[in-house]
Amino acid sequence: MSKLTMEKLVSLCKNRGFVFPGSEIYGGFANTWDFGPVGVELKNNVKKAWWKRFVQEDPNTYGVDAAILMNPKVWEASGHVASFGDPKMDCKKCKQRFRADTLVENHSKGSVSAEAMTNEQLEEYIQSNHITCPHCGGFDWTAIRKFNPMFTTSRGTLEEGADTVYLRPETCQGEYVNFLNVQRTARAKIPFAIAQIGKSFRNEITPGNFLFRTIEFEQMELQMFCKESESMEIYNDYKARALKFVEDLGLKSENLRYHDHDKLAHYAKAACDIQYNFPIGWQELNGIHHRGTWDLSRHQEFSGKSMLYLDPFTNEKFLPNVIEYSIGADRLTLALLCAAYEEEALENDTRIVMHLHPAIAPYKVAILPLQKNLSQKAKEVYASLAKDFMCDYDEAGSIGKRYRRQDEIGTPFCVTIDFDTLEDETITIRDRDTMKQERLKINELNNYISQKIKF
Amino acid sequence: MSKLTMEKLVSLCKNRGFVFPGSEIYGGFANTWDFGPVGVELKNNVKKAWWKRFVQEDPNTYGVDAAILMNPKVWEASGHVASFGDPKMDCKKCKQRFRADTLVENHSKGSVSAEAMTNEQLEEYIQSNHITCPHCGGFDWTAIRKFNPMFTTSRGTLEEGADTVYLRPETCQGEYVNFLNVQRTARAKIPFAIAQIGKSFRNEITPGNFLFRTIEFEQMELQMFCKESESMEIYNDYKARALKFVEDLGLKSENLRYHDHDKLAHYAKAACDIQYNFPIGWQELNGIHHRGTWDLSRHQEFSGKSMLYLDPFTNEKFLPNVIEYSIGADRLTLALLCAAYEEEALENDTRIVMHLHPAIAPYKVAILPLQKNLSQKAKEVYASLAKDFMCDYDEAGSIGKRYRRQDEIGTPFCVTIDFDTLEDETITIRDRDTMKQERLKINELNNYISQKIKF
Repeated sequence: MSKLTMEKLVSLCKNRGFVFPGSEIYGGFANTWDFGPVGVELKNNVKKAWWKRFVQEDPNTYGVDAAILMNPKVWEASGHVASFGDPKMDCKKCKQRFRADTLVENHSKGSVSAEAMTNEQLEEYIQSNHITCPHCGGFDWTAIRKFNPMFTTSRGTLEEGADTVYLRPETCQGEYVNFLNVQRTARAKIPFAIAQIGKSFRNEITPGNFLFRTIEFEQMELQMFCKESESMEIYNDYKARALKFVEDLGLKSENLRYHDHDKLAHYAKAACDIQYNFPIGWQELNGIHHRGTWDLSRHQEFSGKSMLYLDPFTNEKFLPNVIEYSIGADRLTLALLCAAYEEEALENDTRIVMHLHPAIAPYKVAILPLQKNLSQKAKEVYASLAKDFMCDYDEAGSIGKRYRRQDEIGTPFCVTIDFDTLEDETITIRDRDTMKQERLKINELNNYISQKIKF
Repeated sequence: MSKLTMEKLVSLCKNRGFVFPGSEIYGGFANTWDFGPVGVELKNNVKKAWWKRFVQEDPNTYGVDAAILMNPKVWEASGHVASFGDPKMDCKKCKQRFRADTLVENHSKGSVSAEAMTNEQLEEYIQSNHITCPHCGGFDWTAIRKFNPMFTTSRGTLEEGADTVYLRPETCQGEYVNFLNVQRTARAKIPFAIAQIGKSFRNEITPGNFLFRTIEFEQMELQMFCKESESMEIYNDYKARALKFVEDLGLKSENLRYHDHDKLAHYAKAACDIQYNFPIGWQELNGIHHRGTWDLSRHQEFSGKSMLYLDPFTNEKFLPNVIEYSIGADRLTLALLCAAYEEEALENDTRIVMHLHPAIAPYKVAILPLQKNLSQKAKEVYASLAKDFMCDYDEAGSIGKRYRRQDEIGTPFCVTIDFDTLEDETITIRDRDTMKQERLKINELNNYISQKIKF
């Protein structure tokens, strides 16, 4: 079995309808991707699985869906306007812009931890190691400057001048500003969490590595509000739950590891990533952060509104601590695609099979009439199952080729309709992973599939 | 029963956690709204119902999820850069900007169809009817100018200058640019549709009327590609299907009507809205448009890439016609909230009840222990149901008050746990609409609820 490369995955995704390059007919648009017919189902299923686990099944978590465009003061309070930014350098020769830390990391092949270096250290490293421009090969750099990666736009409701507005670079501010709205309407008592799935935007200039880093990305995250005394226990609990979630979806333990941060933001009490062993190496998959009272205190200061929680048992008023758990839907989808991929050697053949967990597989079942004159019966079966599951229907080509196509998009079950079906209402169901087949009654199918796709 | 006003609905939505004003602690941010804990479930259920009906159950429809930020040439091809815009006038006194057609429509209380008027006719009407500035009362207008409502931002990957990039003002271009990607990977034959749910952005300056018009909004839409000869039949079919969908979700026939357009875009062959009788009057709920070959031909011209479809039966190559069906998820959510609202006079009381279709109700069931010392058993029941449904749990206050709270957020079923439950594993289930109660076994609950919430 040959190793999965990112190139191989990008190609499979494009050819099977998982993911297309964004605006492809116009030569693309850097670091944007469009999910195709099977990709959109996969990603939606990932989001549903997360919401089910962390919102639906958790009585202390409440969802929100906040606007992407927020009052600009939110980003002053959050600190993004003043200090958010990566260290950037421009090549004076070709005018392209690069991240200095990425230049150092790529040059050192990851052996140097650029994240911990100051701008002066980065510049010195680049000079003394004679790191040249990846675009034109030149060696004529500007000094490092901060480049704020927030996209800006303007509201423009007044004749002259217009307010600067930001595309949110993170979703969590939607929870912070609504902390008391949710607490009041849900009559929630701490510890409780507010969760959200939504798009964020960052003007990233580094190569994206497919879905790993994109200029717009969907975050799945929650903010747990709690007492300081219980905060470390909750932090550790989310570390465990976050790991279990991705393992349950199909990422293997040996490709997952915790990465506790040594260097913390001044307000943070603890921070940890879970890293996944992508084809591009170990990279951050999600984060768990102990943010103290920083976010609520800043919003209290900048809005002039009290963000204090009134404890109904002790009548104390205080700012809760916040534990944040955040994972990118696109990045997790990428990890799941990587984990699912197998080139399996068969007796006389090789097959590519995506071993996606049935709960997130784009199609749960494909209906395949053995011959075209069985299509009426096959369409009836399709219609009855399509009420409950995403199903595919395919009557073109040999049955072997049709199985291979379903294997490549990760369909866990294939149902073939044959002439016996017309006689006795039975079908053959084939398992994607084992390729074993069994005979079932049509009216047993719905229950059979329902049981297998549970998460 | 008193009439529903928008003010009343906004207030209920805020107090019950459906919808909060966006960035509220900062004094809000015009025409943005945040969905709260029950609102996010409602809106997600509306989106799921649409996707199930138009994608999952339709073998000829394929989903996509395209990036919001697209190559800027897309918006040149679509015509949005050159000619997209509303007629705007500025008040010279207070410098506020208004839509001229809205000024006319509001002044005439809808008796004048401003949509069909030229800029000259609008200006003349405003002058001769002495329409004053709604903000300062002044009467000193600029001439009408086009104001492009696309939000712009910049990508900024080069040192000097930066490309102008647009926040998409409509989602459908994501389908057009991927027409052949989807056709090829799904091996689709026309007629087939590509569907998408996603956010669009417009720099609207008119009052939004709550969720009716917001600067970011989520569209649910599909583009059906077909032969010209079959296009009118498909257009009429979607008119019927679009109406049936909203009726099935709970909008009453007497509050729905078709509004066929007299004035068509030069490329359009037919266009129709479905209007709903909102508390602010009859307004567009969704659109069905026959767009001819306009969109694909423009992309072919601007990208230089062939957008021709090869008919596998006749070997003809041609540009398909496009039928578009589009509905706003936020606007439909607003209509469903309006339709669901009832102030019901009871014998000694009035109750507010939201008669939401069980399939879209935020919580399917609320678990209510009659007394606090029954909470252990109640939590067991909650945990078993939460695997399959969004459930609420409430043990605070009298049972009557708890029922009223659930009525106001539209929970179709309330389950009470009493001392008999501990003996015989039975509970009482109460129907939101009829208020009738029946006794069931705990192990019958899941099936009972599953049957009732089907869509």
